[in-house]
Amino acid sequence: MPMINSYRTLKSEKLNTPVQTAWDSYLTGMQMTHPNDPRDNITDSSAAATAMATGTKTYNDAIAVDNNHQQLKSVTEAAKEKKKSVGFVVTSDLTDATPAAFGVHNVSRKNYTEIADQYYDERINGSHKVDVLLGGGAKYFIRNDRNLAEEFQKDGYHYVTTKQDLKKNQHDKLLGLFGEVELDKSIDRENSTPSLKDMTEAALTQLQKNENGFFMLLEGSNIDNAAHENDVVGALSEMEDFEKGVQAALDFAKKDKETLVIITADHSTGGFSYGAEGMTRETGYKWDPSPIIAAKKTPGYMAEKIAEGQDAEKVLSTYIDMKLTENEINQVKNATSQSNTAAVQKSIQLIFDKRSFSGWTTLAHTGEDVPVYAYGPGKEKWKGLIDNTQQAKNIFAILEQK
Amino acid sequence: MPMINSYRTLKSEKLNTPVQTAWDSYLTGMQMTHPNDPRDNITDSSAAATAMATGTKTYNDAIAVDNNHQQLKSVTEAAKEKKKSVGFVVTSDLTDATPAAFGVHNVSRKNYTEIADQYYDERINGSHKVDVLLGGGAKYFIRNDRNLAEEFQKDGYHYVTTKQDLKKNQHDKLLGLFGEVELDKSIDRENSTPSLKDMTEAALTQLQKNENGFFMLLEGSNIDNAAHENDVVGALSEMEDFEKGVQAALDFAKKDKETLVIITADHSTGGFSYGAEGMTRETGYKWDPSPIIAAKKTPGYMAEKIAEGQDAEKVLSTYIDMKLTENEINQVKNATSQSNTAAVQKSIQLIFDKRSFSGWTTLAHTGEDVPVYAYGPGKEKWKGLIDNTQQAKNIFAILEQK
Ligand SMILES: [Zn+2]
Ligand SMILES: [Zn+2]
Repeated sequence: MPMINSYRTLKSEKLNTPVQTAWDSYLTGMQMTHPNDPRDNITDSSAAATAMATGTKTYNDAIAVDNNHQQLKSVTEAAKEKKKSVGFVVTSDLTDATPAAFGVHNVSRKNYTEIADQYYDERINGSHKVDVLLGGGAKYFIRNDRNLAEEFQKDGYHYVTTKQDLKKNQHDKLLGLFGEVELDKSIDRENSTPSLKDMTEAALTQLQKNENGFFMLLEGSNIDNAAHENDVVGALSEMEDFEKGVQAALDFAKKDKETLVIITADHSTGGFSYGAEGMTRETGYKWDPSPIIAAKKTPGYMAEKIAEGQDAEKVLSTYIDMKLTENEINQVKNATSQSNTAAVQKSIQLIFDKRSFSGWTTLAHTGEDVPVYAYGPGKEKWKGLIDNTQQAKNIFAILEQK
Repeated sequence: MPMINSYRTLKSEKLNTPVQTAWDSYLTGMQMTHPNDPRDNITDSSAAATAMATGTKTYNDAIAVDNNHQQLKSVTEAAKEKKKSVGFVVTSDLTDATPAAFGVHNVSRKNYTEIADQYYDERINGSHKVDVLLGGGAKYFIRNDRNLAEEFQKDGYHYVTTKQDLKKNQHDKLLGLFGEVELDKSIDRENSTPSLKDMTEAALTQLQKNENGFFMLLEGSNIDNAAHENDVVGALSEMEDFEKGVQAALDFAKKDKETLVIITADHSTGGFSYGAEGMTRETGYKWDPSPIIAAKKTPGYMAEKIAEGQDAEKVLSTYIDMKLTENEINQVKNATSQSNTAAVQKSIQLIFDKRSFSGWTTLAHTGEDVPVYAYGPGKEKWKGLIDNTQQAKNIFAILEQK
């Protein structure tokens, strides 16, 4: 995945020495991500998550149900049957496709309120399936017709909404909602919003208390969201957030010595390329991280400030630590004069794309195989080119052995 | 690499059943391809080939020399020192960067005539380094100032220029030149031009005669050339040619049981994506092979026919087995009226890109890690994420053991 190369290069530039990512040395193979969909051969997040959570390929939009709308058993449910603890740590809303397919069952990912309800209503032997739920999605959990945060609290869950309260948590049942829908992108986040690392550490502290062990899902969900916007600044800030979360998980596993960590992507997004049109012998045949390091906020954040009435040139100079050309500034001003926030965002993104030589081919997903990394006991099962359904099959097999 | 996914989907569509490529099941890891170049962090073919042939990273343009222009020992030379036979089988000119870096030494890949001379002039213990040389490049080997085909023949090499003569060859020293520069793309090839499989089988027949064993380089060189043109039809026809060549090598290794086969890419080209802008819920979230299957020649071939004076609409209907829209035909006609062959080619390519949902971001290379596949004794050395220099290091180590 070219985004991994970009992140590796960005990190190396920041540290001024060539480095790898937290996961690079654990590469074991790649996985195929296509859905089983009569119309599509490129997956969405729900079909991919269903494959990885249940071992069955299904249609795009399916949340742990098959093509006949039959519910599919998930590794979450298998772990719970084995009396293990379960934790979900994501930067999307918890009702988004990936956590949803690991947590509940629904014919459509778009049934957000139903999915939120199902987190509370679906049980294994009378118990809630997920002990630690950390992410966004307050608008789906706390509604006029139903307040799931209150319901979870009545059942003994501690409920937090800030990083500060999350860090103070002592309860092994925990619900944390840190955004109405998804969390802000890492680089745009307020101090009260936790990082993926904050959430991962808080989850691991509780999950490890169960002597039967635990299953945890950690997703750097906003990498996909940023790539859907073709925002290289946002995507790479999310890659950094993801890497720190993964590092926390790996650090735990290295100490613990009994924990298996699998790292992969559900699919690729945006047709991103490391290198793009405009490279010449003079500019160099290179992808350049320096303009991205100069950004202090995402183009989307800057566009919003401009939409709120701030002066475009002022916003650019405040949030981009790099001298822009008159041409670049004028492009943003022109977009601003059309009062179209999306166009303003796009005009700012183009500055970063052109200077870094980042390319994009779509606002949607692409279907190439994605790398798979494994660390810890059992990792041998993840070798070579696998189908994404093999993820669940391997985990089911490991749970059976215990 | 998305091109592998496209090829897998194309092959599955042609066979009407889901299949994998010849190499998929041998995936062992991925390799990093960046050069050691003060200006560039995306490799060209010469720096990549030098890394894989010698174990040393160098600058773009370098042919088996380091950043100080010092010659680097190649695995070809190490194999020859061990009295093994050596064969090169490529669809580019033999003077192109990849075979050149495995065969000779030069400060620049652009010194084509020098490189051709060096194939004859550079020796190991008095012997030519490469016993079987099959590919293109007649214009560099046969010149007014020097005729290397004749010189090689004087030294006992059999010389062939057609598939038919290649198939009749009985000599273990062999030079075959099947194009002035590179060979035509597979789908455009005349009957007298061999496939990569034809060349591979002819080479293996001779190389296996040496009881000390052999080292062979096989390159599907034109995949890169087609991707530089952003020509998905040409690239996939070359992928098929490459796969059949690889299959011939794997078939040999499976019988022989003593041969190690490594399959990889030196880099990615074009920022190709499996899926591209324009996909909607109605069209499907998919990459579609059917328009590409409908093509009987490359867009470049068709553009040439039009440039030669043939009617554009007639050319399209002759070489594309698919009903085009008026809009598509008019785009090609408009380009034709400008008498610009490159623009005509591009206008035809866009038909295939749009209908298949193929995306491109550059006419140059991109820098992402590429997959690595290994079959046979010693394959364990190729596990995980490796640097491309590890290819040579592994081969040197294996040669040392023998
Ligand atoms: Zn997505
Ligand atoms: Zn190239």
